[in-house]
Amino acid sequence: MLKTVLIGATGVVGQQFILALQNHPWFELTSLAASSRSAGKRYGTAIKDPDGASRWFCKESPPPEVLDQTIENGDEIDPANYDIAFSALESNAARNIEPRFAASIPVVSTASAFRYEDDVPILIPGVNEDHFTLLKEEKRKRGWNGFIAPQPNCTTVGLCMTLKPIQDNFGLESIVMTSLQAISGAGRTPGVSAMDVVDNVIPFIPQEEEKVQKETLKILGRINNATIIPSDARISCTCTRVNVTDGHTETVLVVTKESSDRDGVKSAMKAFSKKLADQNLPSAPKELLTISEDPFRPQPRLDRETDDGMTTTVGRIRSDDSFERGIKYVLVSHNTKMGAAKGAVLTTEMLVKAKLI
Amino acid sequence: MLKTVLIGATGVVGQQFILALQNHPWFELTSLAASSRSAGKRYGTAIKDPDGASRWFCKESPPPEVLDQTIENGDEIDPANYDIAFSALESNAARNIEPRFAASIPVVSTASAFRYEDDVPILIPGVNEDHFTLLKEEKRKRGWNGFIAPQPNCTTVGLCMTLKPIQDNFGLESIVMTSLQAISGAGRTPGVSAMDVVDNVIPFIPQEEEKVQKETLKILGRINNATIIPSDARISCTCTRVNVTDGHTETVLVVTKESSDRDGVKSAMKAFSKKLADQNLPSAPKELLTISEDPFRPQPRLDRETDDGMTTTVGRIRSDDSFERGIKYVLVSHNTKMGAAKGAVLTTEMLVKAKLI
Amino acid sequence: MLKTVLIGATGVVGQQFILALQNHPWFELTSLAASSRSAGKRYGTAIKDPDGASRWFCKESPPPEVLDQTIENGDEIDPANYDIAFSALESNAARNIEPRFAASIPVVSTASAFRYEDDVPILIPGVNEDHFTLLKEEKRKRGWNGFIAPQPNCTTVGLCMTLKPIQDNFGLESIVMTSLQAISGAGRTPGVSAMDVVDNVIPFIPQEEEKVQKETLKILGRINNATIIPSDARISCTCTRVNVTDGHTETVLVVTKESSDRDGVKSAMKAFSKKLADQNLPSAPKELLTISEDPFRPQPRLDRETDDGMTTTVGRIRSDDSFERGIKYVLVSHNTKMGAAKGAVLTTEMLVKAKLI
Amino acid sequence: MLKTVLIGATGVVGQQFILALQNHPWFELTSLAASSRSAGKRYGTAIKDPDGASRWFCKESPPPEVLDQTIENGDEIDPANYDIAFSALESNAARNIEPRFAASIPVVSTASAFRYEDDVPILIPGVNEDHFTLLKEEKRKRGWNGFIAPQPNCTTVGLCMTLKPIQDNFGLESIVMTSLQAISGAGRTPGVSAMDVVDNVIPFIPQEEEKVQKETLKILGRINNATIIPSDARISCTCTRVNVTDGHTETVLVVTKESSDRDGVKSAMKAFSKKLADQNLPSAPKELLTISEDPFRPQPRLDRETDDGMTTTVGRIRSDDSFERGIKYVLVSHNTKMGAAKGAVLTTEMLVKAKLI
Repeated sequence: MLKTVLIGATGVVGQQFILALQNHPWFELTSLAASSRSAGKRYGTAIKDPDGASRWFCKESPPPEVLDQTIENGDEIDPANYDIAFSALESNAARNIEPRFAASIPVVSTASAFRYEDDVPILIPGVNEDHFTLLKEEKRKRGWNGFIAPQPNCTTVGLCMTLKPIQDNFGLESIVMTSLQAISGAGRTPGVSAMDVVDNVIPFIPQEEEKVQKETLKILGRINNATIIPSDARISCTCTRVNVTDGHTETVLVVTKESSDRDGVKSAMKAFSKKLADQNLPSAPKELLTISEDPFRPQPRLDRETDDGMTTTVGRIRSDDSFERGIKYVLVSHNTKMGAAKGAVLTTEMLVKAKLI
Repeated sequence: MLKTVLIGATGVVGQQFILALQNHPWFELTSLAASSRSAGKRYGTAIKDPDGASRWFCKESPPPEVLDQTIENGDEIDPANYDIAFSALESNAARNIEPRFAASIPVVSTASAFRYEDDVPILIPGVNEDHFTLLKEEKRKRGWNGFIAPQPNCTTVGLCMTLKPIQDNFGLESIVMTSLQAISGAGRTPGVSAMDVVDNVIPFIPQEEEKVQKETLKILGRINNATIIPSDARISCTCTRVNVTDGHTETVLVVTKESSDRDGVKSAMKAFSKKLADQNLPSAPKELLTISEDPFRPQPRLDRETDDGMTTTVGRIRSDDSFERGIKYVLVSHNTKMGAAKGAVLTTEMLVKAKLI
Repeated sequence: MLKTVLIGATGVVGQQFILALQNHPWFELTSLAASSRSAGKRYGTAIKDPDGASRWFCKESPPPEVLDQTIENGDEIDPANYDIAFSALESNAARNIEPRFAASIPVVSTASAFRYEDDVPILIPGVNEDHFTLLKEEKRKRGWNGFIAPQPNCTTVGLCMTLKPIQDNFGLESIVMTSLQAISGAGRTPGVSAMDVVDNVIPFIPQEEEKVQKETLKILGRINNATIIPSDARISCTCTRVNVTDGHTETVLVVTKESSDRDGVKSAMKAFSKKLADQNLPSAPKELLTISEDPFRPQPRLDRETDDGMTTTVGRIRSDDSFERGIKYVLVSHNTKMGAAKGAVLTTEMLVKAKLI
Repeated sequence: MLKTVLIGATGVVGQQFILALQNHPWFELTSLAASSRSAGKRYGTAIKDPDGASRWFCKESPPPEVLDQTIENGDEIDPANYDIAFSALESNAARNIEPRFAASIPVVSTASAFRYEDDVPILIPGVNEDHFTLLKEEKRKRGWNGFIAPQPNCTTVGLCMTLKPIQDNFGLESIVMTSLQAISGAGRTPGVSAMDVVDNVIPFIPQEEEKVQKETLKILGRINNATIIPSDARISCTCTRVNVTDGHTETVLVVTKESSDRDGVKSAMKAFSKKLADQNLPSAPKELLTISEDPFRPQPRLDRETDDGMTTTVGRIRSDDSFERGIKYVLVSHNTKMGAAKGAVLTTEMLVKAKLI
């Protein structure tokens, strides 16, 4: 068992990490770390308000054994005692705290702090294992024993997962995506206000579109001379928030470089979906993608939990009426499972297999 | 006062026509017509279930004077007694019933039955008055004294309203639109099931995308030799249903033919918005379009009722990062007001001004 | 393995029975029966619309092995081939069809058709096993080899489950309950209209209050001379529909006959909650009731799925400020699991244990 | 025109006051006051976030003339310059700030700070004008030239409005109420979190039940020797939060002291509803109560805006099945209009008529 420490353990992403690591066969959640405000408290106490209200935000209950763990101070903990650090920090905190851990050990993080640095890859399971090699460059350049491996924005995950087989088979000329994002994607306290989503749509999520566009091109880029050359596809995203608890829906129009059609895209996606199936990774879904033939699917309420939220569901795959080489589809991807903590755990499993941890 | 008859008076669209015609200074709602099942009943009785539950679906109360009107049989009514017929029929019924009226008098309809016929224009106030002339062709060709003037699909209205000033100033090369449509847009009984929209998105509305694409190109087309030459823009729409009662939200990416920028598009839209302002049309909004500078707008809950649902709100107008000559924006348009009955009443007012009625 | 037939297999309650019986260690779902319209079809075909849309309404996927079963005609099937029939019929159909089965074999039913007959008990696991004996009276009186054992209305289940320990320990003088019911409780197609629940509450569910009141007093009644003497408690229910997919919330004020307090009620509930724990019933939850100390619980979204929807969560247990011997609490109970099909399966397990099947 | 100052002008309740006072024929909104943080700013600037997002929370647009008013510092403003102060402060701030104004001028407030003081009446239009006299006692005892007249909690308003005619005609023995409250009732920033209400019910609102119970008995109490003797009715409330933007729904069971029936209660309510009709108060609704005969009403989405949110809708009035002299009904009352700012403005109008201002 590898010893792991979770930094930012009390927030909502930290809680999702705790669930993703529950009964994990390779990773022991040895320590929970948080800010000095929570340090020293029993975890079960730290996630309770003075008035008795729970601050555990997940639908699944917290594992009983975690409730009695004592929270440690993230600033004082010694990274050398662990094999891996999982970071659920907010971006500003991550920028300051993650490097101290990375100097000693690998850090797998959901924070955006280091995503856009040249020597840091953004990893998605099944999509860009060829970028693993950049982690060595990151270590070398920064003089770290470990590294920081950031996960992408939750909205990027399902998009890249579906674009990758299209890119590999037909090339990507342009991508137009509109997201209908769940409220849990807003992450941390206080999150989205109820008045904003009841009987409503919020058509703007600050910085989200820029993140998704930039990350997608980077993730779909190729390595050259220990550098990522981003994809040259044109990409235009509009990100909206809708009245859904979990599960991001994305409508996608892709124009491919080479001739493409519906059946070819389906075949490519089906082949891709099996990519991790035979690697015995504990958190890997049977299929990375599943294709629904029901014209009314995917739907977030019905499809988000497929294989515990690790499978992206794609539906309505069709050729576009007007754009030559245009392919359209809709996807649903679980924003807090494959799109966040549990996706990060799966990435970590792949890094272990690849002997990078 | 012109005498008008409303065909399909008991359904939800009929109810919206009743509200749109309440206290109208030009049009008297002389008769309410429905199928033989309702004929002979008091209107107030016809919109009540045997168990006392109301079948009046609008938020606004029914006008008291209408409740006591007796419903007439649409199949037996004599069109010659009226100056205008408003049709709120479903498409199949419209195909059979509307021609009998059009043989005598103008019919303004929300049904899709005749929208796609070559000699029939689809009219949107402020957008394609130049298509009025086709109504004469329709009369001539069919040997009617009247005509059928169909309104477009509710989703088409806001889109064309915002595309028109862009087309006129910069030309339209391509349009990619994703709609987040309200449940009232599903129209008629029984409408959308609650289980389908609570905590959910439905990514497919049968035939909607084809309708919006076809109608948009026709409406933005030009008249040549008493025929409409559709716009040659490429158009790709994805239509989804979200958990919103009223007000369609649409995310739009337009690539213009000529060079364009954010400020130019705003100016063009502002100029266009005043188009009907000085014509003294009773149902015309002060502005056809209004531009919001709040980055989080438009929102259906906050913007749909602007000028009683007759103004389309546009926000987030910006140049696209990746597509040259790409302009992006989000719009909210009221699907059952400007997008349906009240829009049809405004069209009728314009036809009266144009002496076509 | 006991051979079972499911009558009404294609509707939403039938689907819930299929899930409740999936991998059941005692009951084999030997046959699926439905009306002549579906008979002869593959189950997977019967639950699909002509346009490819699924008519499978549950969040969980249908068991693959069921998709290939051929549906039989419920009117032609021979009950003698089975040990048990599960009925998911609507009430009118149940009145006609269930007796033909009950003449030969036990029928466990979610329909209300026979609930209010004097010789028919309404059974809730853990609450009124003493009423099992009435099934013999039912068989005798009707000359059946089997019997009909109806489950209560979904709203009755959580209420009786929480009232029973109070009744046994403190007596029940009066009960005032308001329910906030989920939309899935409206059961069958087309169910609740989206326009009725978005941003709304429907304050009336036809006949629901009468059913809950009558059933509760019957279930909490005692057997005397092979007859049920209903409880003499006064009961007043108000049933409303709210914007929740699954899980009924009920606010309850009970005035007890004898002196009671919060801690006594909690102890009584805790003792009751273990009632089925040691009987090795496959569908029994570890606890029939669980008490939450979080003042903001129970909440349907967070608590409905406890122990796969078989545990009722009780919270906010407190003495009333104004009513002497008044106890108040809020409960959440899963309306389509313990409150319907899976509750019926559990009842059946208890009847097998009791050698009544 | 009376000169008025609004204290707490930038928050959501302050915004509702601004709307309630728009174009008011008696009251000029002379000054807007807020904390030193906002003082000196243009109102239109103060309600905008640095990123351009609006902090105006009402569906109706802000009056253009208000946007250009400069906000004054509430701590420095001289009350003597005004005839009336409206207070939209939070309770803690109100406790400190309102007395400084009350020393000089009448303060009508939505804050709870002074509601429970013996010499301070809680006023509801049409319900307890006999309590006006206590304001003199308040002035005398505290040595103020003005007074503080607090409005009740929003949930109390509809309840008292419907109980008053029952009390006057049949006496009140006991009241059991469950509220299904709208999210706008949570008032101020950040309000209710979306994750808490989507597909959910929150069964607890801190201190709400105690407030409603205490206020109701006080409001329905009688004056004796310049003191309020609270009603001796027993009252038990459960307050929940549901997924509704505006409009509180309350289910009520009343046991009357004297014999009562449905028709008697209806008549009493109808008589009461006209109480303010002939007083020419600018904000008074035509009817304080309206009775719906549709068994599925009242519904918040359809009934909350009746007469601009100033009329409470009552439905399902019926005799209880089990409780002798039991009367049941459901009400919907607008929590931010009659239940807050606009109700306070109406109270003020009545105080002017009564020459107390």
